[in-house]
Formats: sequence, C-alpha cells, structure tokens
Amino acid sequence: MTKKAVILLSGGLDSSTCVAIAKSQDFDVYGLSFRYGQRGSYELDAAAAVAKAMHIKKHVIIDIDLRAFGGSALTADIDVPKGRTTDEMEDEIPVTYVPARNTIFLSFALAYAETLQSDDIFIGVNALDYSGYPDCRPEYIASFQDMARLATKIGVENDQGVRINTPLIDMTKAEIIKLGLKLGVDYALTTSCYDPDEAGVACGECDSCLLRLKGFEQADKHDPIRYQT
Amino acid sequence: MTKKAVILLSGGLDSSTCVAIAKSQDFDVYGLSFRYGQRGSYELDAAAAVAKAMHIKKHVIIDIDLRAFGGSALTADIDVPKGRTTDEMEDEIPVTYVPARNTIFLSFALAYAETLQSDDIFIGVNALDYSGYPDCRPEYIASFQDMARLATKIGVENDQGVRINTPLIDMTKAEIIKLGLKLGVDYALTTSCYDPDEAGVACGECDSCLLRLKGFEQADKHDPIRYQT
Repeated sequence: MTKKAVILLSGGLDSSTCVAIAKSQDFDVYGLSFRYGQRGSYELDAAAAVAKAMHIKKHVIIDIDLRAFGGSALTADIDVPKGRTTDEMEDEIPVTYVPARNTIFLSFALAYAETLQSDDIFIGVNALDYSGYPDCRPEYIASFQDMARLATKIGVENDQGVRINTPLIDMTKAEIIKLGLKLGVDYALTTSCYDPDEAGVACGECDSCLLRLKGFEQADKHDPIRYQT
Repeated sequence: MTKKAVILLSGGLDSSTCVAIAKSQDFDVYGLSFRYGQRGSYELDAAAAVAKAMHIKKHVIIDIDLRAFGGSALTADIDVPKGRTTDEMEDEIPVTYVPARNTIFLSFALAYAETLQSDDIFIGVNALDYSGYPDCRPEYIASFQDMARLATKIGVENDQGVRINTPLIDMTKAEIIKLGLKLGVDYALTTSCYDPDEAGVACGECDSCLLRLKGFEQADKHDPIRYQT
C-alpha cells in the first residue's frame, strides 16, 4: 500500500522542496493550498504550477477569509516592511505575521489527513532563516502534534496520531536550495515575495525576498525568478 | 477596560449557555460561527437569533468548505444514526464525527482572539452527555491551550497565551439547562438536531436530540422547540 502525505503547499521555495523530499521518500503527495485573502493570486498560481510540474496526486485549494479578522500586513492594508537585516528579523515579530495562520493551515491538513487515512503531514517551516513567526518554531510543531493525537479518531484508535514532518526545520536556506536542486525542484515556478507588483514580479526587498536571495548567494546558485530591482 | 471573549456559537443549547455564562462574568462577547457545508442553514439562523437576543458585541460567520474533504455524515451523503442509547454513544466514535472540526474552529477562534487582543475563548464542549467525539475531551482542550500559547504573538510576549474556557465540560445536560434558564437563555431559539426536516424541525431521534430531550426530562423542564415525532 502506498503511503499518503498531506503537504501544505504555498507555492514558495520551502514547500516545493518539501514535495520533492516527500516524493523521494515514496509518498503519494496530496497538496493543500489556501485562498485566504492574500494580495493577488500569484501564490496560488505558483502552487498550481508546482503541483502540476511535480505530478502530485491531488491539489486541493480551500477558501477561507482571514480578512474577516484583519490584523496583518499580508491580509489588511498595512505596508510590508522592506530592507530589514536578518538581525532585525530575529528581534521582533513583524507586521506580516498573520494571527494563528499555521495553526489554521495545519488544522485543515489534519482534517484532510484523517479523511485520507494518511499518517503524515509535511510543512516547510524553518527555524533558521525565517521571519520570526512564533508558529515556525520546533516547540510549536511538537505541541501541535501532541494536540493532533488527542483531537482525532486515528489518534484515539492507535495512540499514535498524525506525524507533523518538518524536514527543513534545521536547515539554512542555502542547504534547502542545494537539496531541492539535487531532487529536481524547478525554482523558476516558485514565488516567495510578500509584496510583488501586479504582474507578480518579486520586490527583492521584503524579508522573504532577502532571505531567498541570501540563500541562493550562499548556495552559489542562480535564482531563476525575476526581481523588480 | 472591558474583557473580551470569543465564543464558538453553533446555535445549539451548549454554546448559547456559554454566551450567558460569559456575559454573567462581565465579558463582551464576540461570537464566531461557521458555514462549513452543513445540511441546511438552520444552525446559522439559530446562531444569529441567539446572538441578537443576547445582545452580543459582534457575530462573525466564516465560510469554510469541509465538503472538499468529505468523510462525515454531517458534511457528506452518509445517513445520520437514529435511536442510539447513551451507552452506544460512549462506545464508539460515530459517523457524525467531522474530522478535526473543533481543531479548525478553535484555530479560527484563536486568530480572532489574537486580532481582538482577547485573552479568552469559550467553547461549549461537554465530556459527560456527549456524542463520543475525541475533540470534546478535557485532555484535548488542555493540549490545544498549550499549543495556542506557543503559536501566537500574545503567547510569546506574555508567556500566558489565550485561555480556552470550557465552563460546561463537567456538567450534565440537565445541569446545563438549569443554569441556562437561571441566566435567562431562551432555548426556543436554539437548535441541536443533526438531521432536521426542510423546515428545520428536529428529528427527535439522532444522538443530539436524544441527549437534549433526556436533559430537559432530567431537569424537569419543558423543551420549547418542536420535534417531528
């Protein structure tokens, strides 16, 4: 019997690399993306392109409206910060933080995994080169897995529950890129920018662009996507 | 400064009683309901009626489509079981279980609480007279609260996080009804049935109807809603 994995697929560099890792471990991949009030559709377009290019089993897009709550630069009318150093990113939680976003996404992944009778969820969180979000830390992920075991029928029945796999959590961006290229990820299909222009071209200055660019530089590889600057 | 509470409001007996309890504790109440692919709109109509009658501060309805996953009698085309005894309910998780439903609902409540800068979520789960769902148990709720502390900005900043209040968890249905009546809940506005007819009239035979009817009987009170049988 083939193993099934539910993967949170944002269309970014990290989640695309997660798909390649899960496939290299012989999982059938079920991708899950969200239309949650992001600016523009470029993220979902990228997620769909990655899903197609990597031949995943199924790609489900869930509509949820986080704008009903507001409170983040990614879903409300607040400016995305530009040109921050990595130290500045580590010092405080930025306005691009979306309240409880990963918790909501992982909860849907849990529902999907339980419905598929899958024991594995993959999420591309990263605790080294990241934007300082609380819900990217290893202790958060471990705690979600404990909760998930108690939440679900599968957890009650076999006392194991669903595993939350975070293969990238201790890797630098450069290491992730090198691994992804080795596994055949086409990073030209991915998008990372928090604030692209109307054509979807990356700004090159937000936290996410800066981390990506630094990663390619340190990996000594060329980033195939276009930038405004 | 007034205290704010986010309350998961299903339009049922338990969540309506939760609103009355929170109000008796001087909370401003922000109700949260979900359009998640239930059969009919009677639940949301009841939630809106309760919200209005109890003068809550705000009532937000979130659209999510759990039918994309399927896997439950409440969201897919599976028959709702009728006429089960309480012992049968305790023995196994029924087909009306919706995978990870409370986890998804609490995750949205967490996002809403964080946006409102509220420290309190109320959920009307009950571990005595309940349908045997894993995500109604006290250990599940405690685990969700631990996870929520690690997930959020508020948890990182004050090391406390959001409290998940479950005032009904150790009460019998009869005790809940007596308390609610004392606090002025109008149970005629509420709905509990998993499988009402097209006019929204309760079946009187599903787990939820049977628990409700038994509760009113044991409380020696009259249930003001209509039943088909």
